[in-house]
Amino acid sequence: MFEMLPPMVHTLIDSAIEEDLGRGDITTRLTIDPNAKGSGRLVAKRPLVVSGLDVFARVCERVDPEVEVAPRIAAGGVAAAGDVLATARGPVASLLMAERVALNFFQRLCGVATLTRDFVERLPEGCPTRITDTRKTTPGMRYLERRAVIHGGGHNHRLDLSGGVLIKENHVAAAGGIAAAVTACRAGAPHPLRVEVEVRGLSELLEAIDAGADVVLLDNMTTAQVARCVQIVAGRLFVEASGGVSLDTVADLAAAGVDAISVGALTHSAPAADISFLLESVTDAPPRS
Amino acid sequence: MFEMLPPMVHTLIDSAIEEDLGRGDITTRLTIDPNAKGSGRLVAKRPLVVSGLDVFARVCERVDPEVEVAPRIAAGGVAAAGDVLATARGPVASLLMAERVALNFFQRLCGVATLTRDFVERLPEGCPTRITDTRKTTPGMRYLERRAVIHGGGHNHRLDLSGGVLIKENHVAAAGGIAAAVTACRAGAPHPLRVEVEVRGLSELLEAIDAGADVVLLDNMTTAQVARCVQIVAGRLFVEASGGVSLDTVADLAAAGVDAISVGALTHSAPAADISFLLESVTDAPPRS
Amino acid sequence: MFEMLPPMVHTLIDSAIEEDLGRGDITTRLTIDPNAKGSGRLVAKRPLVVSGLDVFARVCERVDPEVEVAPRIAAGGVAAAGDVLATARGPVASLLMAERVALNFFQRLCGVATLTRDFVERLPEGCPTRITDTRKTTPGMRYLERRAVIHGGGHNHRLDLSGGVLIKENHVAAAGGIAAAVTACRAGAPHPLRVEVEVRGLSELLEAIDAGADVVLLDNMTTAQVARCVQIVAGRLFVEASGGVSLDTVADLAAAGVDAISVGALTHSAPAADISFLLESVTDAPPRS
Amino acid sequence: MFEMLPPMVHTLIDSAIEEDLGRGDITTRLTIDPNAKGSGRLVAKRPLVVSGLDVFARVCERVDPEVEVAPRIAAGGVAAAGDVLATARGPVASLLMAERVALNFFQRLCGVATLTRDFVERLPEGCPTRITDTRKTTPGMRYLERRAVIHGGGHNHRLDLSGGVLIKENHVAAAGGIAAAVTACRAGAPHPLRVEVEVRGLSELLEAIDAGADVVLLDNMTTAQVARCVQIVAGRLFVEASGGVSLDTVADLAAAGVDAISVGALTHSAPAADISFLLESVTDAPPRS
Amino acid sequence: MFEMLPPMVHTLIDSAIEEDLGRGDITTRLTIDPNAKGSGRLVAKRPLVVSGLDVFARVCERVDPEVEVAPRIAAGGVAAAGDVLATARGPVASLLMAERVALNFFQRLCGVATLTRDFVERLPEGCPTRITDTRKTTPGMRYLERRAVIHGGGHNHRLDLSGGVLIKENHVAAAGGIAAAVTACRAGAPHPLRVEVEVRGLSELLEAIDAGADVVLLDNMTTAQVARCVQIVAGRLFVEASGGVSLDTVADLAAAGVDAISVGALTHSAPAADISFLLESVTDAPPRS
Amino acid sequence: MFEMLPPMVHTLIDSAIEEDLGRGDITTRLTIDPNAKGSGRLVAKRPLVVSGLDVFARVCERVDPEVEVAPRIAAGGVAAAGDVLATARGPVASLLMAERVALNFFQRLCGVATLTRDFVERLPEGCPTRITDTRKTTPGMRYLERRAVIHGGGHNHRLDLSGGVLIKENHVAAAGGIAAAVTACRAGAPHPLRVEVEVRGLSELLEAIDAGADVVLLDNMTTAQVARCVQIVAGRLFVEASGGVSLDTVADLAAAGVDAISVGALTHSAPAADISFLLESVTDAPPRS
Repeated sequence: MFEMLPPMVHTLIDSAIEEDLGRGDITTRLTIDPNAKGSGRLVAKRPLVVSGLDVFARVCERVDPEVEVAPRIAAGGVAAAGDVLATARGPVASLLMAERVALNFFQRLCGVATLTRDFVERLPEGCPTRITDTRKTTPGMRYLERRAVIHGGGHNHRLDLSGGVLIKENHVAAAGGIAAAVTACRAGAPHPLRVEVEVRGLSELLEAIDAGADVVLLDNMTTAQVARCVQIVAGRLFVEASGGVSLDTVADLAAAGVDAISVGALTHSAPAADISFLLESVTDAPPRS
Repeated sequence: MFEMLPPMVHTLIDSAIEEDLGRGDITTRLTIDPNAKGSGRLVAKRPLVVSGLDVFARVCERVDPEVEVAPRIAAGGVAAAGDVLATARGPVASLLMAERVALNFFQRLCGVATLTRDFVERLPEGCPTRITDTRKTTPGMRYLERRAVIHGGGHNHRLDLSGGVLIKENHVAAAGGIAAAVTACRAGAPHPLRVEVEVRGLSELLEAIDAGADVVLLDNMTTAQVARCVQIVAGRLFVEASGGVSLDTVADLAAAGVDAISVGALTHSAPAADISFLLESVTDAPPRS
Repeated sequence: MFEMLPPMVHTLIDSAIEEDLGRGDITTRLTIDPNAKGSGRLVAKRPLVVSGLDVFARVCERVDPEVEVAPRIAAGGVAAAGDVLATARGPVASLLMAERVALNFFQRLCGVATLTRDFVERLPEGCPTRITDTRKTTPGMRYLERRAVIHGGGHNHRLDLSGGVLIKENHVAAAGGIAAAVTACRAGAPHPLRVEVEVRGLSELLEAIDAGADVVLLDNMTTAQVARCVQIVAGRLFVEASGGVSLDTVADLAAAGVDAISVGALTHSAPAADISFLLESVTDAPPRS
Repeated sequence: MFEMLPPMVHTLIDSAIEEDLGRGDITTRLTIDPNAKGSGRLVAKRPLVVSGLDVFARVCERVDPEVEVAPRIAAGGVAAAGDVLATARGPVASLLMAERVALNFFQRLCGVATLTRDFVERLPEGCPTRITDTRKTTPGMRYLERRAVIHGGGHNHRLDLSGGVLIKENHVAAAGGIAAAVTACRAGAPHPLRVEVEVRGLSELLEAIDAGADVVLLDNMTTAQVARCVQIVAGRLFVEASGGVSLDTVADLAAAGVDAISVGALTHSAPAADISFLLESVTDAPPRS
Repeated sequence: MFEMLPPMVHTLIDSAIEEDLGRGDITTRLTIDPNAKGSGRLVAKRPLVVSGLDVFARVCERVDPEVEVAPRIAAGGVAAAGDVLATARGPVASLLMAERVALNFFQRLCGVATLTRDFVERLPEGCPTRITDTRKTTPGMRYLERRAVIHGGGHNHRLDLSGGVLIKENHVAAAGGIAAAVTACRAGAPHPLRVEVEVRGLSELLEAIDAGADVVLLDNMTTAQVARCVQIVAGRLFVEASGGVSLDTVADLAAAGVDAISVGALTHSAPAADISFLLESVTDAPPRS
Repeated sequence: MFEMLPPMVHTLIDSAIEEDLGRGDITTRLTIDPNAKGSGRLVAKRPLVVSGLDVFARVCERVDPEVEVAPRIAAGGVAAAGDVLATARGPVASLLMAERVALNFFQRLCGVATLTRDFVERLPEGCPTRITDTRKTTPGMRYLERRAVIHGGGHNHRLDLSGGVLIKENHVAAAGGIAAAVTACRAGAPHPLRVEVEVRGLSELLEAIDAGADVVLLDNMTTAQVARCVQIVAGRLFVEASGGVSLDTVADLAAAGVDAISVGALTHSAPAADISFLLESVTDAPPRS
């Protein structure tokens, strides 16, 4: 039903189960008939973008392979308040034990996807500017959060320090200038990668262009400065802007003509989506034998 | 310098390093002299409560044991905008490689501590009500986030499903009523644990008291309802309130006389604290030999 | 068929398989037809209480998913000498390879359950005193051994250092007295936990009661001393006794009126249960293809 | 100070720490000054053979690298009741946190070493018979328990299913007889391994000798039967006896002239050694800074 | 369909998937319909011996349980150029994602099996000499490579440092001579192991025989020297030769009458077998739902 | 002394130690005085390029922190036959135990670096063509092997499936043509990545250029075909050639003017470098205490 989850994600899922369930669920053991079966619904309490139902399902399956999760909305789909996102069936004890861990993943991922869509929807209509994530992700969850950004309509930046060349101020200083840094990276980086360099003003921008950079990063510039840079680049390079971008400022920055705007808040400050798991129709099924 | 970090935290730190640095840092390799030494400062860009400097230090040490981190503010301390939280010294390449992963942990933990303090500070002066966390924590980070809540002046709820008995609506239904559920848990739970039960109204509250519950949870009640329950309990049980509590509503709820208010947002929706790592005074030290 | 096993248990199972089977079973490879199927019976050679058949089954399944284990006696059930506890069917080579590792878990867990029941059965009839375990468990097996104690009719003490507050002599000394220690713990511990304190005499007992302790631990007292303490407590607190309790002394201690007796030997010195796996009815089935 | 511990042992140590300390030690946090230093002594409460002090030290070091453990008796040494086995110094909080986990390993390993020596000492004086262990070890602890057997004066049997060829009844049946099984193993087993075969009587013994077996295993025979077999073998093969050997029966069996007696109880049923950790001389040292 | 793979192999498979697929397959995500199904054939491009199809299948299954691998040639079988080794069916995206990692294992293992057979086939007809591997294996792959040697018609040497006694020059020097070293090992080694000793000349050979060694290792001797040693041994011990043996020299060495020739190159320098995975008959199957 | 090794490398090192040393080194235990100290030299027996001395050192340190490894030649340096690459000092037993595992890593990595240099040295003088690796690496060792390629003077291709876009024949077919595939990837791939596409002839090459590909891969073309493609590209794109390139054919291919030649054999078929560890100057040092 779902795509592959990398081994590191399985490991994190096991850690999350271990930290909540590793010593057992005393309350459930003492109050729930182990043979009772039930079903429940995952319900959006506010509008959201779906991401991570496969992780929700995987947590449940790892707690008890008898639990079955049936998604109702595909990844990237938009849910209104009250929409059922998925149903889950199986032993009641297992549903109660898995619920919190599964939701801790799912609410966070929907939160990232939803915030991403909020940013994307602020862009002027037809605007080709990309909203991208950053490396400011939750420890252990980068793969999942990057995927949530795509589900929300955003794009990914480099996935790690090997997935792109990005020359920042400290690298420039150490290398002896933008030209030297860009040249070193063009000579030594794997050829599947572009060379991106952060510039702090027009002279640095021109130096970057001359040195053969493929992408420039305009960090913490005013919208006017950004617009001026875009004009100078004139389509020869890919232009990225970043630095404290908010839902209020993203439209102007996009209108300035940049190709991409990277937003750390997508992953480091997205509030959890508001989702409930409602257990119902409990039946005392025959023993699991 | 710091207290023990549990093995699971070390594992998560390694996962976080693996996901950012596991294939290497191409830009740093191509631009930074491996013998260059430098130092940097961790600076608060907005007011915050410190939590997780030991994790920051551990990430750095794992990337390169030669990096030394010297804290300036103890865990639980409050920093103003501009305050230096710690300094770090070592090979420049290692500082640049470790920075992002270390900050991803540290900014999140300071964020949790800071939001907790925000809640605590809303309490009426002298009010003994506890602000507590919940099990709605980031997968893999529960230990660290729980500690951050304490650093922020909050208290912990049960740490996992074995660290307390909490009978919720589904357990009550399955056990055949509050009295039956409480009795079963009193008989079977480890004696170091109290028995807490969620009640939805006065009759359930009275049933819980009669059955010998130690703690009652008032979920999603109005402040008036809560006050009425507190009055009935009259100090015989510990009273906890929960359900969508915000910075705006926490003071009224506390004033109603509950012993504790649990707030999921402390861990599931705290924005990352705004912290910069500023690298400076780079010197071309002699070779590391 | 069985309840969830936490991730740490799966990891230990894999370690146990690795240490016996990780380089292969040379004898079986050279003598057993890989297509031969067979079945075997797990037989109790002496009376025992069953615990850990799910672990036995999990080891087999991990060695070869084609092996099927069918339990005959539920966890907590009592077997007489000669009783069949379970049957297993599958490739003969896999049965031979899995047998020893699976039994190493199963015999130990039945041993713990059986010794627990021995203690419980020594209690005077109708006596409400609990027999509880301690933290003196086999490294890596705490979850399984705690469960075995329950299967044997015992109760669990705190599951780990976070699952209860237990103030011992060193804590008292460091905190500056029983009252100070109890007060600090009442103020700072998670509210789902009771506060337990070890006392060495009557004056300490009275101090503990006054300070608001929920549970007292009477360590290494004579039965007479214990009885005197129980009289003083008069039901106001939960009373636990511990210290070198044996099958010979447990009844008297219980008769003194304590609520619980904790016994380290349940987990640190239970002899392995005597169980055989008898392979039979080997048939040269058609190739597994 | 100590020999290498294999990676799997480090992993088990981390699991054991995780299961006791992974959520923190609430009592210690609330009562012990983190700057207080202290020292303690490991004391034998009954006579024992020492094994596993390096594991004790490793647990302490993993909890806090500042804890220093100084052994007083080498591995394999015998301690009388009251003897100090080692001292430990460091932060009091860390000593209290590490104590139980470290003792859980150490008491078990001393227990195995001590029981082994008990068996060895029952042998007739000058008797060359080996007391060996079996594969009936505690899951995850095989390396440590095997080492404890050596510390107790015993010998190891094959360490795992790849560390020796041992043809049992099922292998014989599947291979079509002892001769066929032995021949197959001689032809296919790695040449550094001997071929051992279990025999149930004289005719099988003769068949094993003819087929070129290097070792025979006499399982569950009477002492008289064993003596008869030894006489027939006449030094041509190595003779091992096994099967429910106890401290009461081991001397007779050895006197019958076997080369080795394997005893499962050494590892599956050794009671934990009785050892205390006594904390003393607590001083409020200056801050750890 | 296949035999058990030890836990360490599963761990290595996950590591290999993590290092190639852990951040996702961007190209496949952007170009392949997730619902498209297809099938492919594993084809030998040059003659080879098959080993590791189960690992190939396991990698595929771990990437996507819907992928089914059907072997056409059993382990140890010989394939001609153009032969189909196996077929695989499943989602096209999953086949493309798993292909490279699965082949990286499979090509290496077939390479080892094929080189082993090359050595075995150089032996004089009817020659009983064994070709054995060494401990010079690829980190993490020892189990798989040892198995591949068997598939290629070779034999295994000791599997690890515990799976045999092999006294080398440094051990002899430290122990004070061959006799002392052999005697110490005969006295202390587990009885399922033979004692092997490396000798550098005739006098050492005689000393080894006298001391009761079971096996001698002739390292880096000329064929003439080896023949002389074999003559002296006269069948009393097992004789192994080693040291830079190549396809050109193996026949002469075997003809000199040694029982085994160990060849490090089998595992440390076998070139990868030339195998292609050809994807075909792609169909746009209905959604996976 | 050395750069950071990623967590996955540490894990592999532990696995390699576990598989050789996890059950102990019986021979060394029985023959070597644990207090004896010694030193040894790593010597190149044939010319080679150095790579992986830090891994060699890490293995030794993990076996025994008292072992000190002092490199004599830096990574990427060339050694002649007889050159000393490093020295190691420490307990003799630890040196003997660590040697084989440490060499298994080191010989392989030097082998990769050496073969890479062999290819690079075949290039026409002054030729700017890159020799690059592929994803055909040893499971678990990709990071280390990629680094060895750089040490040998080569370049890296994409590090994993997320570190570059490479559209192959199957992707083209599924996407409905080269133009469609390139367009999809340009629209959806992270902007730090170039888009590379495999072409099988001139018309596909032109289509790729028109669609905006950044890199073209010419797979298995004749040198003449390659030269024709280079002429058409005329510097507008980066041109890579691949497919069964050998030391004999690499010069001609480079002369055809391609920007890069990727060679799978660098990592999948490099023979181990010939390196010895010679232990010497053993002294009976005073006890390690």
